[in-house]
Amino acid sequence: MDMEKVNSMDFGEFVDVFGNVIERCPLIAAAVWSQRPFSDLEDLEKHFFALIDALPQSGQEGILRCHPDLAGRELQRGTLTAESQREQSGAGLTSLGADERLRLAELNAQYRARFGFPFVLAARLTDPAAMPRELARRLHCPPAQELRTALGEVKKIGRLRLADLLCVDPSGP
Amino acid sequence: MDMEKVNSMDFGEFVDVFGNVIERCPLIAAAVWSQRPFSDLEDLEKHFFALIDALPQSGQEGILRCHPDLAGRELQRGTLTAESQREQSGAGLTSLGADERLRLAELNAQYRARFGFPFVLAARLTDPAAMPRELARRLHCPPAQELRTALGEVKKIGRLRLADLLCVDPSGP
Repeated sequence: MDMEKVNSMDFGEFVDVFGNVIERCPLIAAAVWSQRPFSDLEDLEKHFFALIDALPQSGQEGILRCHPDLAGRELQRGTLTAESQREQSGAGLTSLGADERLRLAELNAQYRARFGFPFVLAARLTDPAAMPRELARRLHCPPAQELRTALGEVKKIGRLRLADLLCVDPSGP
Repeated sequence: MDMEKVNSMDFGEFVDVFGNVIERCPLIAAAVWSQRPFSDLEDLEKHFFALIDALPQSGQEGILRCHPDLAGRELQRGTLTAESQREQSGAGLTSLGADERLRLAELNAQYRARFGFPFVLAARLTDPAAMPRELARRLHCPPAQELRTALGEVKKIGRLRLADLLCVDPSGP
């Protein structure tokens, strides 16, 4: 999809296409439409990220709370968004053994209890074997730092999803 | 549902229950959870409304863009959220004649073209016969004033939905 096409979309079309760039937060794409026209991937993602940064802390936590657990109940039940399903499957999370799944579930629960939002990680950029270790490490970070880290992961996920939609290389020019 | 129950919910349960108080913006409910405990309907809605007011203008426009048209394609196709379906049906919009539907569709299109968001109205509080007149009137308002008016309608809708969920009288104490 080229940018001319993107810039010609009405807000309904734009939200249909970009509504899940930020997981289950079509509001963000719907807001970004106000900033058109866009010149390229970098410009488009800049507006997505600026809106995230402009939210009060509770709003940023809200974005995280719209994300599913990694290897959680929704993956097993098949109720993830198409993007999350693809990302979690692609990262090998559908073929975990029962022990690994249980270990992740325990860590996810501890993380949620400590921070009040789920553990978010750009699964496509992470070795699945390293995930429990990374989760255990982040579990001990100070809350303010962890909020920043988690939002950084939201942005990495968003950049990859945008690059997929625009059929461009996410590593950029 | 009493407030003790509400205050005991984890964020997943809270978003499941209150995620559509603001139409298709579960992010707002997910953010409001940060502010628990809540004392009553007024307290809970205060936090929903404060988050809307704290958004940059593009974010407020984004909320409006997550709303469906009144008597639009989604009502005919049955793809509205359960809440919108109930509200639009209850307001008699499922039994409009072809002429009335066409008239509303034309006005909706003009409104979207002028303001860049759909016409939002608390259908449960409006006589259906008055809707086209109200739409035609608001179509000529200055954009900044119309944004405020539309967000006021979002809040009226949100208050009614909260009152339904909490089984209390929305006119309040």
